[in-house]
Parts: sequence; C-alpha cells; structure tokens
Amino acid sequence: MMERSLPPAHDRVRAIRWRDDALELLDQRLLPGRIEYERLTRAAAVAQAIRDMVVRGAPAIGVSAAYGVVLAGRARHRENPQRWQGLIQADFAQLAAARPTAVNLSWALRRMATLIAGMANGDPTERLLTEARAIHQEDIAANRRMGELGATLLRAAPGAVLTHCNTGSLATGGYGTALGVIRAAFAADDIDRVYADETRPWLQGARLTAWELVQDGIPVTLLVDGAAAQLLRQGGVRWVIVGADRIAANGDVANKIGTYNLAILARHHEVRFMVVASAATIDMSLQNGAYIPIEQRAPEEVLSLAGQPIAAPGASAWNPAFDVTPHELVDVLVTERGVVWNPDAERLARLMAPTG
Amino acid sequence: MMERSLPPAHDRVRAIRWRDDALELLDQRLLPGRIEYERLTRAAAVAQAIRDMVVRGAPAIGVSAAYGVVLAGRARHRENPQRWQGLIQADFAQLAAARPTAVNLSWALRRMATLIAGMANGDPTERLLTEARAIHQEDIAANRRMGELGATLLRAAPGAVLTHCNTGSLATGGYGTALGVIRAAFAADDIDRVYADETRPWLQGARLTAWELVQDGIPVTLLVDGAAAQLLRQGGVRWVIVGADRIAANGDVANKIGTYNLAILARHHEVRFMVVASAATIDMSLQNGAYIPIEQRAPEEVLSLAGQPIAAPGASAWNPAFDVTPHELVDVLVTERGVVWNPDAERLARLMAPTG
Repeated sequence: MMERSLPPAHDRVRAIRWRDDALELLDQRLLPGRIEYERLTRAAAVAQAIRDMVVRGAPAIGVSAAYGVVLAGRARHRENPQRWQGLIQADFAQLAAARPTAVNLSWALRRMATLIAGMANGDPTERLLTEARAIHQEDIAANRRMGELGATLLRAAPGAVLTHCNTGSLATGGYGTALGVIRAAFAADDIDRVYADETRPWLQGARLTAWELVQDGIPVTLLVDGAAAQLLRQGGVRWVIVGADRIAANGDVANKIGTYNLAILARHHEVRFMVVASAATIDMSLQNGAYIPIEQRAPEEVLSLAGQPIAAPGASAWNPAFDVTPHELVDVLVTERGVVWNPDAERLARLMAPTG
Repeated sequence: MMERSLPPAHDRVRAIRWRDDALELLDQRLLPGRIEYERLTRAAAVAQAIRDMVVRGAPAIGVSAAYGVVLAGRARHRENPQRWQGLIQADFAQLAAARPTAVNLSWALRRMATLIAGMANGDPTERLLTEARAIHQEDIAANRRMGELGATLLRAAPGAVLTHCNTGSLATGGYGTALGVIRAAFAADDIDRVYADETRPWLQGARLTAWELVQDGIPVTLLVDGAAAQLLRQGGVRWVIVGADRIAANGDVANKIGTYNLAILARHHEVRFMVVASAATIDMSLQNGAYIPIEQRAPEEVLSLAGQPIAAPGASAWNPAFDVTPHELVDVLVTERGVVWNPDAERLARLMAPTG
C-alpha cells in the first residue's frame, strides 16, 4: 500500500489570497521553477494579470476579478465619494474584457455589480471585500461538494484517470474542479494513477497540475497530448476528467484546447468522459457551444516556448485557447448542484431551475 | 494567385550525403536554429547518430544505415582483409539495434548483408558504396512516384491538408513520403494550405516540417497537437496525410506518437486519412500492429524542452515514440507500387506479391 499521509483535504495550495489590503496572486507563469506571489493594489493591475495569465482557470479568474472590484471600489471612493459608482463602470469594463471565454469572470462581476447597485453612500471597501471573500469561499465549498459527488462515480470503477490542463487549486478558489474529484477519489483509494496531458502550448499539465499533485503527494505521470489515444487503447484508464471554461445551455463545453480531442478519443475507446464545473460556469444565455466566444491567442505561444523560439522562422501558427466539446460526447457533468448524466438542454434547465 | 517560383521538384533540402569518403548528416537536433552537417567516418558513429536522432525518419534511418555499412566494410577490410565479413557482423548488430521501430533500418541492412554474402575477396568499399547510393536514389525515386500517386487523389477534393511529424526530405533520402505528396499536390495547385501539428515531444512539425516547407516556399501553419480536433471540426481540411515507420501485413500502421489520435479524429469528422510509405516500410513478417515493437524513449524528452526543464520536479512521464493506427482507420495507403484503398491483409498481400 502506498502511504497517503495527506491532510484531510489533500489541498495545500492557495493561489489567490487577500493580504494587507491587497490581492496576492501566485504567478503561474513562473511555476514550477519559482513560487512568487504578485501583489496587486489596483483593478487595472488585476485585469492585466488575468490577461497575462498570472492567474488562469475560469473559477480563479472569477474570484480574482471580484477582488479586483474591491480594489476598484476603494480607489474610486477615495477619488470621488459621491460619484464612485459611476466611475467604477470603467473598471468593470476593463476587468470584463480581460479574457473572453471564461463565463465565471462576468458571473463574478455581475454579482459584485448587483451589490454595488444596492449600496448607499460611504466607503464600500469592507462590504465589497466581504462579498469577494464569499465568492472565494463559496467556490471552494462548491469544489469540495463536486469532489464528493464525482468521487462517488469513480467508486464503481476504480483505476487510472486522465486529465487535461489544470483544474486544481491553481485554477479555482482552491481544491479544484476536475482535480478536486481526483483529490477526493485518490483519498478514497479509488484512483491508482493520475495521467496528465502536458497541455501545449502553455503546459498547464506539466507545469501546474504536476506541481500541485506533487505538493499533495499524489503520484502523477505526464504524457504529450498526442499520446492520449495510445494510452486509452492500452486500457487501465477508466475515466477522462476535465473542467470547463463555459458550458452552454445545451451542455456543450468550452474548455482548454485539446479537450475536444480527448472527448472523441474517450468515446472511441469506450472510456467515460466527465466534466466537472460549478454552476457559475454554466451560461444559460447561450443556446449552444457555437455561441461561446473562443479566444485566439498570440502565435508566439506556439512558435516559442519559455521565451525560446522553437519553430522555423517563416511559419505561421493557429492558436485557439479553447475548443468546444459537443454535449453528446459528455457522459456526465458534475456540479455542486448535482450530477447530470448525458447532459442536454432539458437536463441542464432542470439543474439550473431556481429551487422552490 | 500565389507565386510559386519553385524548382520543378520543390525540393531543395538533402539531409544525407556522401562526401569525401564519409557520411554527412544534417544534424536535425539543431534545426531550425543551425544548419550543421555531422561528418561520420565509422559505423559506430552512425549507430550513435541514429540513436541520438541526428537523423530520424524511417527511410532516412535506412539510407543512413546503408552508408554505415560502407564505413564498416572499409574499416573491417583494412583491419583484416580475410575475415572482414565475419567481423562486420558486430557492426550490423550495432546498427540494427540503434532504433527498434522503423523497419526500413533492418530492410536496408538486410539488403547490404545480401550483397556482402555474395562477395569475393578484395576491398568491398566501392561495391558497398554503389549499393548504398542505389538504396538512397531508389528511395528518392519511390518518393517521387508516391508524390505523383498521392497528389492524384487530392485532385478530386482540393483544399487544406493536415500532417504530423516530419516526413519530408529530412526524414527520407529526399523529397519525402507524406510531404512528397504535399509537395506534388501543392505544385499542382490542389492544396491551398498546409497545417502541421507541432508534434511533441520532439517538435518535428515545428522545427523540421515548417523549416522544409519554408525552404521550398510552401506556406505552413502550425498548431499544437491538441488543436487538431477543433481544426477538423471547422471544415476546410480535406485530408490528413502521414508517413509510417512500420506497416504490418494487415495494414496496421506504426508512426510517430499522435498519429493514432489523428486517425480517430479524422474518422470522427469524415476527413480522409492517407498513409504514404514505400514498400520497404511494409513488414509482411508481422501479422498485425500488436507485434510492432514500440520504442519507449527517455522521460526527459517530455519533462524538458530544448534542454530546459518544464515539468514540476517529482512528476514521472510516459513517452512512447510511436503509436499504432489500426488499418480500419486508414482510408488509403500510397506506396510506389500503387495505391491501396482500405488496406487489409488481402490487399497488402496482393500489393507485395512478386510481379510475374
């Protein structure tokens, strides 16, 4: 038996923290080489950090943006105690535009905006901070709940799992979505091996998921993204488990580029495909995945690596940051509201309906 | 109209050359940054160069090994003019063991061994060199023929193509297999865009295919391997075209890791999947792909990139160099002997039967 002397949560990493009146973000561009928190005191700096991927992962972006609104509220109220609610609209716009695909960003901003709309005069900082902290803590709580629900599904068929990108403490308020399920199932002895795609171009798997799992004592084996089919063909992998950046009303899933590949490969090999995402990731305003805006990032992310050019000069590159997996390829969607097998428009509508 | 002022062959690169009594190999580890030929005067150095991937690509490995036998024959004859045919067996063994998957290596060595077996006394160098040059020239001729045959298939449905790894002049005696078809079809105006997977871990697509195509004035767009499904879903790509390192008697294809992924993705999107390989790549002694030995390479190729560690310390890696695509996923196999639709054991037996 492998020794598993983990703390109850197997969850040692926090990438987002509020400390001494500022937001501190673990700079994910430097991992795993360096562990450095960037200290942000202005909303514009938070928007920049999101755009530059100091912080990434749909839920983590949402939480960070909420803290960004705290910084904006404090600054705008100092600037003009009467008109700060008007002035802060520019900060909202800047934060919302930082990255287009993750819906959690606009979800968190909407929640902060609703709070502001109901505010009277006076310094808003404390109330905004309380709300941002609530968003942060609710995200962690949702992740723990998804971890429990998802791990239950793995009990029926323990074995190895394959994941893509990073969906852990680094990508969320803490604990993680897909990686939360993996944490919970590993703790319950229902996973014997975690395979992780390296996830080019940004190498979230190699740099972030591997780092997180090593921190928490969960053994991880990396593979290049192109090796997934051969791995699934070998047998042994029972589940492919991924997160989501946005889910349309019919269950189509936008997630890190390479996810749609995996969904097709999983179906071909009769391996189950699980998507783990909080309800905040579900965008009921979009009928299907074709309406989800897909961010195109700079060709240099493909043409170079860690600042080194790797491709032949003269080549161009196509670099979509996300792809869309049709809901037909999703075997199960795990949210904190419950588990949805074979998600479609009807089942998602039922999941998202206000509870009476 | 795009200007296409290419020489007739669109074929400016040669990675393998015999010059001043030695084998010179373009060091593919240094491309695209540096163009340097490594000069080899001993068979052991050729085996080392194959192992270290100074030269790679199944046909290029075969051609290089043939020249390696020339160097071995010269040295062994000098060492002992009577017993050189016995002594050279050690060189054959060393060359054969350099890499396990490409069958062209053992094919070329067998052909050189057959020649040696029929030799009388005297210095064998010239006769061995003549045979190695013949293997080299025949490979180029076979590639040109495959280029013609494959390009004909693209005429029916012009558009974009997607390729994987490097199968061009750098991977063969010259001109290329899959890339030969692409060269020929581009010259005939039947391809409007070449997409190339970057092909982790070794980045043959980004470093080699892009470099070759840029040399020959053929526009190339790179993508990360994980983006292939999204690209195929968009439409526009009519063919996925790849090479092979070994093909079993039933048509199962061993090729660079990631090929099997593409075959599944192509089938899912109803995009045609073409394999281009000379008859020397077909191993009629193996009933199916399960018997093809798959080389496992060092985890460091995944855990680092261009000498820089990229993965979190403590992570392990699974690094098979090749995968096996079942023949059912291959729409057409193009060889210099002809085109085989839906290859299977019966059709391959017919293709490989000695012509009366």
